Amino acid sequence: MRTRPLKVALLGCGVVGSEVARIMTTHADDLAARIGAPVELAGVAVRRPGRVRAGIDPALVTTDATALVKRGDIDVVVEVIGGIEPARGLITTAFEHGASVVSANKALLAEDGPALHQAAEAHGADLYYEAAVAGAIPLVRPLRESLVGDKVNRVLGIVNGTTNFILDRMDTSGAGYAEALDEATALGYAEADPTADVEGFDAAAKAAILAGIAFHTRVSLDQVHREGITEVTAADIRSARRMGCTVKLLAICERAQDGNSVTARVHPAMIPLSHPLASVREAYNAVFVEAEAAGRLMFYGPGAGGSPTASAVLGDLVAACRNKLSGARGPGESAYTQLPVSPTGQAVTRYHISLDVSDKPGVLAQCAMVFAEHGVSIDTVRQQGKAAAPEGAQPGSDAATGSDGEASLVVVTHRATDAALSATVEALRKLDTVRGVASTMRVEGE
Amino acid sequence: MRTRPLKVALLGCGVVGSEVARIMTTHADDLAARIGAPVELAGVAVRRPGRVRAGIDPALVTTDATALVKRGDIDVVVEVIGGIEPARGLITTAFEHGASVVSANKALLAEDGPALHQAAEAHGADLYYEAAVAGAIPLVRPLRESLVGDKVNRVLGIVNGTTNFILDRMDTSGAGYAEALDEATALGYAEADPTADVEGFDAAAKAAILAGIAFHTRVSLDQVHREGITEVTAADIRSARRMGCTVKLLAICERAQDGNSVTARVHPAMIPLSHPLASVREAYNAVFVEAEAAGRLMFYGPGAGGSPTASAVLGDLVAACRNKLSGARGPGESAYTQLPVSPTGQAVTRYHISLDVSDKPGVLAQCAMVFAEHGVSIDTVRQQGKAAAPEGAQPGSDAATGSDGEASLVVVTHRATDAALSATVEALRKLDTVRGVASTMRVEGE
Repeated sequence: MRTRPLKVALLGCGVVGSEVARIMTTHADDLAARIGAPVELAGVAVRRPGRVRAGIDPALVTTDATALVKRGDIDVVVEVIGGIEPARGLITTAFEHGASVVSANKALLAEDGPALHQAAEAHGADLYYEAAVAGAIPLVRPLRESLVGDKVNRVLGIVNGTTNFILDRMDTSGAGYAEALDEATALGYAEADPTADVEGFDAAAKAAILAGIAFHTRVSLDQVHREGITEVTAADIRSARRMGCTVKLLAICERAQDGNSVTARVHPAMIPLSHPLASVREAYNAVFVEAEAAGRLMFYGPGAGGSPTASAVLGDLVAACRNKLSGARGPGESAYTQLPVSPTGQAVTRYHISLDVSDKPGVLAQCAMVFAEHGVSIDTVRQQGKAAAPEGAQPGSDAATGSDGEASLVVVTHRATDAALSATVEALRKLDTVRGVASTMRVEGE
Repeated sequence: MRTRPLKVALLGCGVVGSEVARIMTTHADDLAARIGAPVELAGVAVRRPGRVRAGIDPALVTTDATALVKRGDIDVVVEVIGGIEPARGLITTAFEHGASVVSANKALLAEDGPALHQAAEAHGADLYYEAAVAGAIPLVRPLRESLVGDKVNRVLGIVNGTTNFILDRMDTSGAGYAEALDEATALGYAEADPTADVEGFDAAAKAAILAGIAFHTRVSLDQVHREGITEVTAADIRSARRMGCTVKLLAICERAQDGNSVTARVHPAMIPLSHPLASVREAYNAVFVEAEAAGRLMFYGPGAGGSPTASAVLGDLVAACRNKLSGARGPGESAYTQLPVSPTGQAVTRYHISLDVSDKPGVLAQCAMVFAEHGVSIDTVRQQGKAAAPEGAQPGSDAATGSDGEASLVVVTHRATDAALSATVEALRKLDTVRGVASTMRVEGE
């Protein structure tokens, strides 16, 4: 074994960074044996130097991250700051000074992955980022390496723990969105400003990264259709239950049927309770990968948290260190197929539509005509209201007619393009008898 | 991109080999782009040259595998023959002639992995074997690379599709073992001679491989405790159901609580229906990995079959080819910890024991004394028989007293060492009132 240690600069020492530092210390012998050389924490860049950091030599702590990555003797930079800047500048500087980089930064990878990969390439360095997607779950490496001889057609999964926790709570307790969010915040599953999670930005960044790897095609963040969970209501969850479904925030990356384009989208969707993703509880993540030869694979585990994220960072750190020792390089960006990224309108999906309608005969016929005009086939209709009943639908067991003669109509469609479905909903809104569209939600996983 | 193609020798052209050849042809452009050079099938060694092989140039087919691997211009040898010889000799010869090897051969890897790794090392070649464990499911690479910075404490899973199919059928249809095996054979899930699967040899080989990687310790096949499913009865399955469990053949690799030894075992076990492994149906595989930092991860997918296995082989082939191009090497054997492999007796587990006893008072007390003497605590007891009832147990709803005054006693224990549990069972056998031990089965997954 080589005795001169490999030097690691740690950028950021929050929940993840401090756990990385702790494991590097407590498991130093194991890491050395697995790498083939000892690995040493050469510096830790932080914003607030005053904070007590258990187990970290205060002499290693600096607020000058730039000077640390410019030292010239750093073999690997571990970036767990998050956000776009200063992380981007520091990573680029690290490459320029000969270091490889391990990053957990999904926002940056999604925003600027190609440029970072190019910078790594230009300087013969590695860029690893397993921790950027789904925490400890090995997903980036299996997609980049294990399935590299296969053709991935679909990646579908739960990649945000905060929203899964909220939706799980709404499902199990019947709570509304606001109440479930409060609980998530109180338990530390949601941040004080939960926007990145609940509006789907975090999941969209992961979808962009996953689609890029899976399809060997650059997918930028603004090409990912994004809807969060803030408009999911307790009524939606109840409605899902009546259909034998639950509601999950899904990231879906798909190759079109003709193979000539791809889509990436993040939105809440109803999935059948029998689907394995339906039983993914609390803040866990799970991702299905469908490949031509491999078939359907699922990867499941904790999608966030200090220790799980540190596990992924350390796996990458060992790989980057091994490559440093042997002069090898890990896989770079693979974007040779350059498939067009289609707007989500071309994705084929099903809709669950809940309408508030006038409680009088003829409404169903009028609505059904709108569906037919848009070429959207109806799977099931459930009417809730007195006057509507004679049209033949079964009133729901919990039917309730509004006191002002309002009723509701719940339609589940067959598969159609997202564009046709949203055009249908727009046309329904214009009907005199439709007082409002209470909710629309896609149905997936069948 | 380099234009001189990398040359691949394929040893074996059965279900897996022919699929590897097909994908290499149909996806040649993708493979070239991902490797950075075209990859070419340079020869296919088969036993029976007469068979028609769709899509394979007959000029490539040879019966002289040794000459093929000795050609000297082969970059990567793909071994999908299976079995110990001639596979072992061919792989060793391949290394000697400068080729890297991708193998799907679990029996050989389990039997002789260390020697093969040493031969690869000696010649600066790669040995990849993702396809040897759990088919298409990325498991070897995640354990070898993604989790290499973590400390794996437990690997527990369903790694044999044939036995899972049989047990699943027994569970869903109430069929006995022989009947379910016949169905598996008829549907092609079991081979004409099912011994390797149903006696647990296949799963034991995978357990040896997984334990070796997970614990950085050599685990030989004869160190894996092995029980097959041939003695699992319809009564066991019904008994499991009454406990809210199902029966699965599990491979379990564990680090001892004190961290100083490991065990590996394969046996049928009852697991709660709420456990994710309980819902792994038909011939699917699923493996849990518990690591110190990562927490609990699960990997799920098709564990066998031509296409899924070919997917794993091709992923490894791309990796081996990339390494050839860049002069790098993939991870070698990691067995630095050399932890002792304990006999299974030291594993801590629970037992479900079904006894045929004399149908008279005092039997339960006598049996309970035996458990107490061995320090094994009883969780629940269920008696089925008239005379036994006054001792206070609830007769089962399907209680049946044998016509000759026989009754049954079903005991589920708390956790104890396997050694204490098997000693208890031996002592029970010696009691006059115990006419026989109908079955013993471990209870896992809680």
